[in-house]
Amino acid sequence: MANTFGILFRVTTWGESHGAAIGAVVDGCPPRLPLTEADIQAQLDRRRPGQSDIVSPRTETDRVRILSGTFEGHTLGTPICLVIENKDYRSSDYSDMATKFRPSHADYTYQAKYGIRDWRGGGRTSARETVARVAAGAIARKVLRELYHVEIMSYVVRVHNIKASVTPETVTPDLIESNPIRCPDTAAALEMVRHIEQIRDQGDTVGGIIETAVRGVPPGWGEPVFDRLEADLAKAMLSLPATKGFEVGSGFSSVEMTGTQHNDPFCVKEGRVGTTTNWSGGIQGGISNGEPIVFRVAFKPVATVKIEQETVDVYGQPTHLKAKGRHDPCVLPRAVPIVEAMTALVLVDHAMRHRAQCG
Amino acid sequence: MANTFGILFRVTTWGESHGAAIGAVVDGCPPRLPLTEADIQAQLDRRRPGQSDIVSPRTETDRVRILSGTFEGHTLGTPICLVIENKDYRSSDYSDMATKFRPSHADYTYQAKYGIRDWRGGGRTSARETVARVAAGAIARKVLRELYHVEIMSYVVRVHNIKASVTPETVTPDLIESNPIRCPDTAAALEMVRHIEQIRDQGDTVGGIIETAVRGVPPGWGEPVFDRLEADLAKAMLSLPATKGFEVGSGFSSVEMTGTQHNDPFCVKEGRVGTTTNWSGGIQGGISNGEPIVFRVAFKPVATVKIEQETVDVYGQPTHLKAKGRHDPCVLPRAVPIVEAMTALVLVDHAMRHRAQCG
Amino acid sequence: MANTFGILFRVTTWGESHGAAIGAVVDGCPPRLPLTEADIQAQLDRRRPGQSDIVSPRTETDRVRILSGTFEGHTLGTPICLVIENKDYRSSDYSDMATKFRPSHADYTYQAKYGIRDWRGGGRTSARETVARVAAGAIARKVLRELYHVEIMSYVVRVHNIKASVTPETVTPDLIESNPIRCPDTAAALEMVRHIEQIRDQGDTVGGIIETAVRGVPPGWGEPVFDRLEADLAKAMLSLPATKGFEVGSGFSSVEMTGTQHNDPFCVKEGRVGTTTNWSGGIQGGISNGEPIVFRVAFKPVATVKIEQETVDVYGQPTHLKAKGRHDPCVLPRAVPIVEAMTALVLVDHAMRHRAQCG
Amino acid sequence: MANTFGILFRVTTWGESHGAAIGAVVDGCPPRLPLTEADIQAQLDRRRPGQSDIVSPRTETDRVRILSGTFEGHTLGTPICLVIENKDYRSSDYSDMATKFRPSHADYTYQAKYGIRDWRGGGRTSARETVARVAAGAIARKVLRELYHVEIMSYVVRVHNIKASVTPETVTPDLIESNPIRCPDTAAALEMVRHIEQIRDQGDTVGGIIETAVRGVPPGWGEPVFDRLEADLAKAMLSLPATKGFEVGSGFSSVEMTGTQHNDPFCVKEGRVGTTTNWSGGIQGGISNGEPIVFRVAFKPVATVKIEQETVDVYGQPTHLKAKGRHDPCVLPRAVPIVEAMTALVLVDHAMRHRAQCG
Repeated sequence: MANTFGILFRVTTWGESHGAAIGAVVDGCPPRLPLTEADIQAQLDRRRPGQSDIVSPRTETDRVRILSGTFEGHTLGTPICLVIENKDYRSSDYSDMATKFRPSHADYTYQAKYGIRDWRGGGRTSARETVARVAAGAIARKVLRELYHVEIMSYVVRVHNIKASVTPETVTPDLIESNPIRCPDTAAALEMVRHIEQIRDQGDTVGGIIETAVRGVPPGWGEPVFDRLEADLAKAMLSLPATKGFEVGSGFSSVEMTGTQHNDPFCVKEGRVGTTTNWSGGIQGGISNGEPIVFRVAFKPVATVKIEQETVDVYGQPTHLKAKGRHDPCVLPRAVPIVEAMTALVLVDHAMRHRAQCG
Repeated sequence: MANTFGILFRVTTWGESHGAAIGAVVDGCPPRLPLTEADIQAQLDRRRPGQSDIVSPRTETDRVRILSGTFEGHTLGTPICLVIENKDYRSSDYSDMATKFRPSHADYTYQAKYGIRDWRGGGRTSARETVARVAAGAIARKVLRELYHVEIMSYVVRVHNIKASVTPETVTPDLIESNPIRCPDTAAALEMVRHIEQIRDQGDTVGGIIETAVRGVPPGWGEPVFDRLEADLAKAMLSLPATKGFEVGSGFSSVEMTGTQHNDPFCVKEGRVGTTTNWSGGIQGGISNGEPIVFRVAFKPVATVKIEQETVDVYGQPTHLKAKGRHDPCVLPRAVPIVEAMTALVLVDHAMRHRAQCG
Repeated sequence: MANTFGILFRVTTWGESHGAAIGAVVDGCPPRLPLTEADIQAQLDRRRPGQSDIVSPRTETDRVRILSGTFEGHTLGTPICLVIENKDYRSSDYSDMATKFRPSHADYTYQAKYGIRDWRGGGRTSARETVARVAAGAIARKVLRELYHVEIMSYVVRVHNIKASVTPETVTPDLIESNPIRCPDTAAALEMVRHIEQIRDQGDTVGGIIETAVRGVPPGWGEPVFDRLEADLAKAMLSLPATKGFEVGSGFSSVEMTGTQHNDPFCVKEGRVGTTTNWSGGIQGGISNGEPIVFRVAFKPVATVKIEQETVDVYGQPTHLKAKGRHDPCVLPRAVPIVEAMTALVLVDHAMRHRAQCG
Repeated sequence: MANTFGILFRVTTWGESHGAAIGAVVDGCPPRLPLTEADIQAQLDRRRPGQSDIVSPRTETDRVRILSGTFEGHTLGTPICLVIENKDYRSSDYSDMATKFRPSHADYTYQAKYGIRDWRGGGRTSARETVARVAAGAIARKVLRELYHVEIMSYVVRVHNIKASVTPETVTPDLIESNPIRCPDTAAALEMVRHIEQIRDQGDTVGGIIETAVRGVPPGWGEPVFDRLEADLAKAMLSLPATKGFEVGSGFSSVEMTGTQHNDPFCVKEGRVGTTTNWSGGIQGGISNGEPIVFRVAFKPVATVKIEQETVDVYGQPTHLKAKGRHDPCVLPRAVPIVEAMTALVLVDHAMRHRAQCG
């Protein structure tokens, strides 16, 4: 019972990887917002497999259809149902999965929890479910942009041991989209792409870190004590497949500093209260302070490797497994729009919650 | 509207630092569980200020009263109201706070959000609100222990640049409680205590990392796709004051590994399916897999320093501020029971959710 | 943001009357339950227009498709997406509705709330949205029958001034389905059908009362103090289009009795505690007591009449309106499966909630 | 887990009849609203026992304390904890209740559900829990009055077989408070009071009907399809002890009319769209239409009678029971502020939800 996200801007997703379709219902969207399938398609195309050499060659076109909630190109305020059909599935690539638990996948835990699973392509455990998140997130982004002038940018800052240097205050969408890895540091990007190709050719995989910068959030969003803005962002990010960590502002490196080094002095900035540094990552006490919101998410290396591994089968017998099929050697370039989508879902919900109580 | 945590085991907290009292209502607790104030007091005493040289000398006794929900020493299944009176407040220490925004505290953001704030001791933004979480968490821990045989242990693994070496599979409560910093690596603990004393004497503060090991969780807890176990843990942790990061299992260090290095091979272990390594941190696809659950939380250095800092006042004018009052130079020893409490709240809720659908 | 019903067995519906499709997502269904489209279709066919002379001749076939959440004929525990395409819409019948507010419909209030509406066939305000509830309810009914042995029967006990005599303890599905009005008192049923035909030929409409009897609910379902079983049933029923009242057990007639007349004496019945009368309607203090649950719902006469009425247009000018199109002269026969569906949704959710805390 | 009401303006209540205290936490209240204990006390005094000859002589003073959420007489936007101590309990009056199930009370169902109960004064099942609802509702009423100019008036329209004649459009608080039964028809009120005295002297009890008129709600409040305004009102009312039915506008009498008789023609009224009749009760399609909201609630006769009744004890043996203690012969006069409180809680939540999405 946990396929709904959000309190006021609520997204419910559904769908298995190799089922008929995957989709989302968005409930609570403000009415009279211009919205067409093209708004959503643009984001799906950024997530789509087959978009470059370094991602899965699965050739889903991922065309979205809006089945409800709009009229003459505008939102009605009623629930918006989005459907993306599954087209190019080759369940035969996954026949081993019917009986063998893939290491560090969710095959075993789903079987343990539900006593049944759709093993075809991983079923509901497949990262393919995120296509519904990106579709719903595209609507959230549009609300944020049009009603609140908020801009969300995610980008790759690390792949395996290759680190990029990016300034969250000035990064632009064009820079991010200028290379297939979606890293605004173009020198590092080149190195990352080459490294992923090399790893892919070895049948292995790598992970990395995505940073997100959100600009334009006014002071006041976030709902202490439990629904602090960073708490809901952390939950959103850790709800994504393959994520292992979340940090906001200074994050784990804050422990290397003392209080006097880490505190962000307040100042007057363009006529409003600001801070001279931003170790807080734009959030203090769970509430946005008007500075850019900055956080990072760690993605583990993809669990599907084309190298034989030890495992156990559904009968509890030791066995071996070697992946077939088409897989990503590194999820990060496709994860960028997914992280942005979840960020948008968190922020639009908080914008509405703030308006409800304090607006 | 965000002072409630949990779906089925629901905790609602309330209270300002220098108000009449702080408390919690626990709704959904299973009936017929033995429960007295002593069960709760034991945990509050671990969180209490004044318990050692390296924490705040504020002398709150933090006595809890159960006002409802029990009868003849057992839970009724009805809501349990817990109240802790505030006794030793010295609002005069905080008079500056009426007009000056403390750097990296929530004074400014609360003012920006609500247009009003109780500045005495930080009001609702004070970490004192966590006393209610610990009280509620004590009930959750008891449910987990008695009904599910689950054991939760948090402990300090890092203070500033001092790192401890701890094995989550074998750590014990006795080891954790054997020193005031609550670090089971006793050599490191000694060094940490000395370092905190030194930092405190400089008027400065430090942060660190708390690790949590949970043993006894059966396979199957966790609710994909949004309420994955690690997602709800991340939210719980980032909802705590002063936290900047969360990681589960391998966490951020997973990015240094390849897929073949990082995958946890399945094996047969004591007659059940297990894994030979535990980079997954006991959770796969958002669901517990039967291995120990292991995660870490980064706490920034305490924002209240006894060194003069630049800031802005409520009239938008630059000014200076130097903290008075009794404060912690490092929150970590007192944060240990808080982290355990939030962990317990997440786990008991998921235990009940799993039972509801699949039990 | 109110198109989701239930806490643990959650239904989210979407769709406009003349949009592409209408549907529901069911989240939280227990896994491993046998489920095919035929299980759902059987209930949709009972709600379908065109099934008899006394209901709307609109010829929707209302074929349901399951797009997710099942595998090899069994539920997976993941969300089940149900879609019913809209086929036979004739928006031209509704062209007046673009500019004129139909009396006692929701045209005006939707316009006032959202500032936009899909006027075609009433859009989201159309009773056609209940097709999604019936589809979702069919799954709830199956869970109740297979896992809890609970049987739900709704039936018409009054149409306009014609009253039936029915015994909730002994009524059967066969009796209910034995006539097009779904009234188990066959003599009254005949009179009701004739009366509806006469009213229909006058271009007018009538309402009536549906009673529901639920047998097999064990003592203990219901969640005081706010989610009492009768409270959630009342909400479910008043969430249906055209409903004006709800009563449980003795209902409004309880006010004609004194306490000594109205109290249900406890007795020992088949080895368990029972009551000799059932004015309580099977619920005491918000919790089922093991006796049959009995409640009634009042449906107003259908608002769409083929007689000219005074109204106002979207420009605020007085005007006249006379309905075209195909409409029900009396909703009651088609409302029977809808009431049963909502009853099932309430009960399965409470069964799961009870199991979670007390199971 | 059902002691919380509302989505955005959330009330959590707790407390047993003869426990230490009863109270509520109100979360989500708008900040900067003037609020003192006197605002709340005024409503508690209307609910208090001992206020007249025709209610229970229990002499609770029911003094409320605000423990959190306000500062210098204004709301902070943080949770407001309200506590009312239980003072005048005489558990000895209830000693029979330890072993005997009172007919048409919740003793048996609580025992069946939880396997334990606080039998003293009925514990959580006592209508005394409504003191917390009235306290919380007083805050909701203040928000509605100050921010939305909405006025809520409930009043008795029937006691046993004595009916009053009241016009919802013009009834005033002064008229309602002009007699102990709170019926604005003063002739009927006199008769009701005499009848209750007579019934009380016989040791018996009676029920009746409370009508509520809400004036000032703008068009647009209410959240289809499930959280229709009348659906949430129905739930709120049926969540109250002793209620058996709810109807809005024409209610059950709508079934006596045809569609042409029942439809409310739209008209232009004071420059806005209105209706010439109000059979809809101010709500159409689940959304307020700007006309007065009118609904009625049926209360059964009080279950506690001072006449010997048959019942069963906790050992499953037939026995007899005759109530001792101080009880109401008719709950209606004290139920008036309770119904108003629940109405206020529903409306303020819907006001905030409407603002969030469409404001």
